[in-house]
Amino acid sequence: MTDVEQLIATHRPLLEEAVAATRKRGYWSAFPESPSTRVWGEEAPTAGRAAFENLLGKDFPLATAGASGRIAPERSPYGIELGVSYPHLTADGVDSLMQAAARAMPAWRDAGPLARAAVCVEILQRLNARSFELAHAVMHTTGQAFVMAFQAGGAHALDRGLEAVAYTYDAMVAVPSSVDWEKPRGRGEPQRMAKSYTIVPRGVALMIGCTTFPTWNGFPGLFASLCAGDPVVVKPHPQAVLPLALAVSVARSVLAECGFSEDLVSLAVESSGEGLASVLALRPEMRVVDFTGSSEYGNWLEANARQALVFTEKSGVNTVVFDSTDDVAGMAANLAYSLSLYSGQMCTAPQVLLVPSSETDSFVTALSSALDSLLGEPARALAILGALVDDRVADRLSAAADRGRVAIASQSLSHNEFPEARVRTPLVLRVASSDVDVFGAECFGPVAFVVETRDTGESLELWRSLTATRGALTASVYSTNPVVLEAAERIAVESGVSLSVNLTADVYVNQTVAFSDFHATGANPAANASLTDAAFVAGRFRVVEIRRPG
Amino acid sequence: MTDVEQLIATHRPLLEEAVAATRKRGYWSAFPESPSTRVWGEEAPTAGRAAFENLLGKDFPLATAGASGRIAPERSPYGIELGVSYPHLTADGVDSLMQAAARAMPAWRDAGPLARAAVCVEILQRLNARSFELAHAVMHTTGQAFVMAFQAGGAHALDRGLEAVAYTYDAMVAVPSSVDWEKPRGRGEPQRMAKSYTIVPRGVALMIGCTTFPTWNGFPGLFASLCAGDPVVVKPHPQAVLPLALAVSVARSVLAECGFSEDLVSLAVESSGEGLASVLALRPEMRVVDFTGSSEYGNWLEANARQALVFTEKSGVNTVVFDSTDDVAGMAANLAYSLSLYSGQMCTAPQVLLVPSSETDSFVTALSSALDSLLGEPARALAILGALVDDRVADRLSAAADRGRVAIASQSLSHNEFPEARVRTPLVLRVASSDVDVFGAECFGPVAFVVETRDTGESLELWRSLTATRGALTASVYSTNPVVLEAAERIAVESGVSLSVNLTADVYVNQTVAFSDFHATGANPAANASLTDAAFVAGRFRVVEIRRPG
Repeated sequence: MTDVEQLIATHRPLLEEAVAATRKRGYWSAFPESPSTRVWGEEAPTAGRAAFENLLGKDFPLATAGASGRIAPERSPYGIELGVSYPHLTADGVDSLMQAAARAMPAWRDAGPLARAAVCVEILQRLNARSFELAHAVMHTTGQAFVMAFQAGGAHALDRGLEAVAYTYDAMVAVPSSVDWEKPRGRGEPQRMAKSYTIVPRGVALMIGCTTFPTWNGFPGLFASLCAGDPVVVKPHPQAVLPLALAVSVARSVLAECGFSEDLVSLAVESSGEGLASVLALRPEMRVVDFTGSSEYGNWLEANARQALVFTEKSGVNTVVFDSTDDVAGMAANLAYSLSLYSGQMCTAPQVLLVPSSETDSFVTALSSALDSLLGEPARALAILGALVDDRVADRLSAAADRGRVAIASQSLSHNEFPEARVRTPLVLRVASSDVDVFGAECFGPVAFVVETRDTGESLELWRSLTATRGALTASVYSTNPVVLEAAERIAVESGVSLSVNLTADVYVNQTVAFSDFHATGANPAANASLTDAAFVAGRFRVVEIRRPG
Repeated sequence: MTDVEQLIATHRPLLEEAVAATRKRGYWSAFPESPSTRVWGEEAPTAGRAAFENLLGKDFPLATAGASGRIAPERSPYGIELGVSYPHLTADGVDSLMQAAARAMPAWRDAGPLARAAVCVEILQRLNARSFELAHAVMHTTGQAFVMAFQAGGAHALDRGLEAVAYTYDAMVAVPSSVDWEKPRGRGEPQRMAKSYTIVPRGVALMIGCTTFPTWNGFPGLFASLCAGDPVVVKPHPQAVLPLALAVSVARSVLAECGFSEDLVSLAVESSGEGLASVLALRPEMRVVDFTGSSEYGNWLEANARQALVFTEKSGVNTVVFDSTDDVAGMAANLAYSLSLYSGQMCTAPQVLLVPSSETDSFVTALSSALDSLLGEPARALAILGALVDDRVADRLSAAADRGRVAIASQSLSHNEFPEARVRTPLVLRVASSDVDVFGAECFGPVAFVVETRDTGESLELWRSLTATRGALTASVYSTNPVVLEAAERIAVESGVSLSVNLTADVYVNQTVAFSDFHATGANPAANASLTDAAFVAGRFRVVEIRRPG
């Protein structure tokens, strides 16, 4: 049995540091991002890999209320046999699942905000201790290269989870647990009331995971809900179950050790196409839904799961406006990396590069040379590109070549360790500014469009209109002209997209860091929420007041 | 021209005190609730009345973008001729109204959170200076008696407005305006980025006012949106325009004096039945909707105004559970006041009194005697009861008498000053616990049901089920038994309704005070929001980040 009071004593300092970090927004991180043995010890990489391999071809050690039978829906983008089987939840089992969640809720609610936050921190730290195992799980479900899987899928995702805990905890403790209220009266005794305020969960929460960043995109909603008191049903994408199964399994262990019900966090696994997410999302008990994925399904959830608060991160078209630079090589290297990282399979990767036609040739030449230099050395290229996650990305890439003039062709690289992995360098197409239907539709994967514009004025207006109509998770501008930068910043503010300016070194537009950068704004069609701000957490709980004469 | 910097210097201390008050939740108020000349000076009552009377029979001095012609839709529940005419907005004018709001937005956004909050405080203080005029306006639109109109419609409403400003300001300044981010690296220089965070409005906001508490229920949404940067369209109930017209007029004056557009706050007046609220609520530019009124229309807004954040306070059935008391007279006096205040025309007034059958006779006797004593002296009775606001309440009261056994009959009192006012004492009916269809439907006005239950156990379960299915804004329990009180508190927490325990003196279940009590929980069907908590304000703005190498 783990003593919750002890967990509180242990984790409270970190929790308070994390809360302070959300308000300072300088650099702060609780989890080491380097997989170096200097941090983790000599044994850790081997032990982590062994732990991962030990999961393969077996029943994953975890139960789900209401599930019947087992399924193993994943295949590794690197081609290895996974064969991890999970409890299979179908629509028939959802009643049982919801009942289990409801039974689990009262004791968790009664534990109070601080105990819940401390338990959440413990879960995150236990997951951190399994970082290598988690990294292999992320790598072999998403196709991310190992180091990226370790960082984005491990440390950075854990930081995003902790950030959500910090925001939720901060919001809950802004309400005191009790107060002696005393209203003075001119004559006679004051009016006195003893009032208490109890944080109550909104209800059961659903977290619908995505294929490419199951932990990074999933942990904020999962941990915000759990910290707020809401039992969480985790519905992973059938292709990326294992990272979330590890998280759910650790969460359940910690909860059970602390005397709470394991059913506060459940794993709901389906096979592709079974429609489980919709069944879960429409349950009346389901009061919070977090989703990352397609605009089509995100919009469906917003329109239909009306009994719930629905937080969505959907598709967008991310734009780079190129006006001028005093560091062509730095700019090109920075963009080459942003286009190449994880084969552009990031909702934050740039897709549209708006370049005045007078500059297009030199822009493409610089970018091409930067891509060659970045990806010329095979081991390094593999470590950056990772593998295509599924057939849809590969098919989209193949089909894209016909949609413009090929400026930089995509190359196929062979993977020395995993010959079945599909590794592709970015495809860059040249199109006219009138081809909005081509470049203005999200083309998720390693495809970018150099759009020739009349001038920077047209580029800025095109960017504004793309953001307003298609949405965007990121935007980037290069200019040495203060007037252009001022105009760009104004458009960013007015169209509701965050902007990176003149990135030429090793900060990339597609990367945001917890405790400092907000991921998405919620102010354009690409997302209705931001990871993580107060609006993302405040509705996950409610306050019940009880007052009596004091 | 009013200097905004000066306003900031003047109002910042009050603003910070207000923020601190939201977190302490002890007694705190910024506006005097007493209409005494000791507070306001000898002239104030007469001058305020004259100012009110000077508005009658005239065009109210205010313009609305897009309006054409004037209408005078109000009639006083006290029978005096009002004849105040307002710009008439129809569906045809909404385009112009929305364009004016959009034009007004950028300068207000760019002013920043502190300037906006200071301007909001100035508006509230200017309104406070017109408290007597405002009180007459509230009285003659709602039917509240003068002192109540002064308090609930003036000081308390202003406190609720300031509370919303405090919450919104606090949420905005939790995000720093900029930070120098510096990430250490093992070797070499740290990564450095200069980041800025700009609070941006969510969009245009709509506040749909109600008949009975146009300011108290309306100010939280109005001031939260305005403080967040959202231009606000105020759509009053056609019967209760004047109090909100005064507020809009003062807001526009202060905004204009400070160099902002008046169109940041607009008054949208329609005649009854023109459907303007729905036209406004469905506009794509409308990103926030605040509503107080019927469940039917509130549910319609939630289902249909999906482009907006919709905050609703709807109907409910408020319950009193009587188990036992050691102060029958105190309890009966307290309940008699709660039933009588403003003729029960409060969304927080008790409607269902659950009493074990063995106690029903004595309960009714005590209540009847308390009502006699409270309302026996005509002047006092008029000051408590006020007047019925409209025919619907009068009709509902007449029809109700057939719906149970009359335990205490409603009496009609004549008003010495306003003979046309309809003044009615509460009707109390006795019904069986199986008559849920009778007592479980909201019967807004001076009607209460004493429901005979088998025992307190049945009362508690009936209360739980009423709250879950019909919703409730308040609940009350009387018991000397700690086991019963513990059970009641548990049900309150589980069914998501705030509870008042053993009120026998001069705090009443239907009154909540700003900065200490939350009005509604958002956790049962009577409301999807709480006045005011962080969830009520956090989504009214968004954050746009701009980062560049630092």
